[in-house]
Amino acid sequence: MQTSPFLGELIGTMVLLLLGNGVVANVVLKQTKGENAGWIVITTGWAFAVTIGVFVAKAFGSIDAHLSPAVTLAFAVATDDYSKIPSYFLAQMIGAFLGAILVWLHHLPHWAATPDPGSKLACFSTGPAIRNYGANFLSEALGTIVLILGLAGISSKGLGQMAVGVGPYLVGVLVWSIGLSLGGTTGYAINPARDLGPRLAHAVLPIPGKGSSDWGYAWVPVLGPLVGAAIGGLLIAWYKL
Amino acid sequence: MQTSPFLGELIGTMVLLLLGNGVVANVVLKQTKGENAGWIVITTGWAFAVTIGVFVAKAFGSIDAHLSPAVTLAFAVATDDYSKIPSYFLAQMIGAFLGAILVWLHHLPHWAATPDPGSKLACFSTGPAIRNYGANFLSEALGTIVLILGLAGISSKGLGQMAVGVGPYLVGVLVWSIGLSLGGTTGYAINPARDLGPRLAHAVLPIPGKGSSDWGYAWVPVLGPLVGAAIGGLLIAWYKL
Amino acid sequence: MQTSPFLGELIGTMVLLLLGNGVVANVVLKQTKGENAGWIVITTGWAFAVTIGVFVAKAFGSIDAHLSPAVTLAFAVATDDYSKIPSYFLAQMIGAFLGAILVWLHHLPHWAATPDPGSKLACFSTGPAIRNYGANFLSEALGTIVLILGLAGISSKGLGQMAVGVGPYLVGVLVWSIGLSLGGTTGYAINPARDLGPRLAHAVLPIPGKGSSDWGYAWVPVLGPLVGAAIGGLLIAWYKL
Amino acid sequence: MQTSPFLGELIGTMVLLLLGNGVVANVVLKQTKGENAGWIVITTGWAFAVTIGVFVAKAFGSIDAHLSPAVTLAFAVATDDYSKIPSYFLAQMIGAFLGAILVWLHHLPHWAATPDPGSKLACFSTGPAIRNYGANFLSEALGTIVLILGLAGISSKGLGQMAVGVGPYLVGVLVWSIGLSLGGTTGYAINPARDLGPRLAHAVLPIPGKGSSDWGYAWVPVLGPLVGAAIGGLLIAWYKL
Repeated sequence: MQTSPFLGELIGTMVLLLLGNGVVANVVLKQTKGENAGWIVITTGWAFAVTIGVFVAKAFGSIDAHLSPAVTLAFAVATDDYSKIPSYFLAQMIGAFLGAILVWLHHLPHWAATPDPGSKLACFSTGPAIRNYGANFLSEALGTIVLILGLAGISSKGLGQMAVGVGPYLVGVLVWSIGLSLGGTTGYAINPARDLGPRLAHAVLPIPGKGSSDWGYAWVPVLGPLVGAAIGGLLIAWYKL
Repeated sequence: MQTSPFLGELIGTMVLLLLGNGVVANVVLKQTKGENAGWIVITTGWAFAVTIGVFVAKAFGSIDAHLSPAVTLAFAVATDDYSKIPSYFLAQMIGAFLGAILVWLHHLPHWAATPDPGSKLACFSTGPAIRNYGANFLSEALGTIVLILGLAGISSKGLGQMAVGVGPYLVGVLVWSIGLSLGGTTGYAINPARDLGPRLAHAVLPIPGKGSSDWGYAWVPVLGPLVGAAIGGLLIAWYKL
Repeated sequence: MQTSPFLGELIGTMVLLLLGNGVVANVVLKQTKGENAGWIVITTGWAFAVTIGVFVAKAFGSIDAHLSPAVTLAFAVATDDYSKIPSYFLAQMIGAFLGAILVWLHHLPHWAATPDPGSKLACFSTGPAIRNYGANFLSEALGTIVLILGLAGISSKGLGQMAVGVGPYLVGVLVWSIGLSLGGTTGYAINPARDLGPRLAHAVLPIPGKGSSDWGYAWVPVLGPLVGAAIGGLLIAWYKL
Repeated sequence: MQTSPFLGELIGTMVLLLLGNGVVANVVLKQTKGENAGWIVITTGWAFAVTIGVFVAKAFGSIDAHLSPAVTLAFAVATDDYSKIPSYFLAQMIGAFLGAILVWLHHLPHWAATPDPGSKLACFSTGPAIRNYGANFLSEALGTIVLILGLAGISSKGLGQMAVGVGPYLVGVLVWSIGLSLGGTTGYAINPARDLGPRLAHAVLPIPGKGSSDWGYAWVPVLGPLVGAAIGGLLIAWYKL
């Protein structure tokens, strides 16, 4: 069979979500071996979810390995070439949705063991520490600007050419940093597909006692990262980073 | 004396188990300096156990440094060459058995100091967080698929040619990721030798108050990883990863 | 627009402070997702703040990526060329001040949620674990000497030429090490701009219930690092490190 | 002034002990910012103490950067060339002694704040979790064998030629692994100078309420590592690792 950028983005984002939301499930669901293991476990897990997701995306045919509509948008703005957006956005959304289903399957006996609906939603989508849409939007936008500028720095010649070999590790370190430092306010979605795809999965999956999917908040981790990405892309274009 | 792939797999897997089960012993046995140090310590310890095991396996003559029947099987399926399976499986099982004995020796005064038999078994073999053979099997298979796809991504040209220098570190990061994110349900054996070899050691060693070796569960961390590895190997072959 | 060393030092130091003080805010402010996450989170966060700050500073035009008057001073002493000091010091101070403002904005709803004024100041500037100006000064100077010698070792040919690719990661590891090992006494400012710029921001920002900016201590994390840096620079010059 | 292997081993080992015992002091002394931060902080701190110590040792003229009589002995046994032993052992012991004094100075106000004499000794030398000289000796020897085989694997062509660039980081990862997995029984001295030099410093320094230097145990972390190193060196020679 044929690898392709579409397949690479889809499978890479699926692995990103399986590992990324997997670590949240491990920490917040009941009776797991990592129950209550803390912020260092969540941020380290998400960091390497990115690293492994990037490796897998490249293996399946996406040299870009964006894994996020925010990164795809920033790259499009930076290069003034919007041609990849439709297919990449679709692949990333499908991948994120499927990854969320895999997290659900992987932790199958633990959903009924966890009484709190909020904990279950946290295994799919982000939520604010203190609900304040303006401040939450700012947090998501700011975190995404740092993501885009960091990617520009790591790849040295603009977003398209990530350093080989250690590049995916360094991108993981970048997300580790953002999670540790800027993740405490909104849970650092910084990726619309990472939040919206799993929220759709949460809405449709038969999870015992699952509660609300909190659609009132859903626009924040979608629009915040897109606005931040556009700003980051403009900075890359203006300064030729 | 002569180094060889057999010796490399044996010594490398022995070091893998000494370090990997060593960190479990440090965290779950009583009166150690790492008692109750948590999931971040266990997963970091297992990650670097893999990195150091790979380095040592290569030094002793195994360029492959599989250290796991699952990885050997995936590679065999991917390349349609099953010739290494008998000798590698044997070397890995012997190495895992010997490594478990070294963990026992290293923590010699701590077995009698630990009353709970389950804690002692955990220093040898994995067990499920919630016993549900179907779900546990799925967890082990899924974790192993991620392992195989991750290895394919890191090595870039299929499983046989791991990147030099930083390769063993990245493989450790891959296992770190799987442990953090997918290890909470079954303890991520994802390696039949890692589970079966030490379970045999648990059965024969004179451990004070050791309790059952839980043979009823033993097939899950053997068959789950093998099935996951076969699927991973097929994906590598189909997509020429 | 034009990148430049001035802009690079300014933006890089701004990102350094956003991420570095961001992790402190995440851990010490109330109702964040990383509340009370401990020393491992703070030191890992600061380490990668340095790594990402260096990458961003280089992207915006500062090949040096000093991000600290102490590093700039050490390099000036080592090479007997003091020409960069005025512009770099200014850029680093402005960047640190702006970074502190971004930390405040990012955590906007959390300041009112945190009653203790000392916790709020900790999100801006360092303070001593046990107030003893002589010992605190020694701690800051000693930490900075290790920083400068470590940078000399990592760059191999004196401070100006940091190893490409993994260099920024290794500099982060160096700061990780100093934080873990030497940060317990004064909070390891080891960078005058990192402490003074945010202290100014703390003094002027409208933070609810903010308390004193502790100007009585402010000279220690400025002079301690500068004296340590001068000693480090002399060692580099004398031994041609 | 002239750099030299002697100076490099001395300064490198001094920095190793300053950072390595510094993290222990941060975690076990009272009123530090890292008080009770746990095993992950201690092992991460010691890992990077090794990485930074190696970088500094190389900068000051020791290409070997052994920083330990055990590593020097293993290399001597492996190459059948014992000429470096007298000068290296002396430099390493002086460096370890001086590094311990720096740890004492760095934490000056915290000694009087810490009532337990055992906690204070732990900032200098290792002690057994369960006192059992035979088992403790075995732990130290086994940990050192893993250290030597790991070094052989990382350097690929025997102990003398460590991989450039990432080599010192990987050696830190090796010690991270040993600490996490094998450090729970005796505190992983795995280096005679690391234990004996600071124990001498503990004996002579004016530490308030310091208690015994536990000389009855002092031979274990000296002879255990030397025996392990000799075995490791023989394995390198026999197998031409």
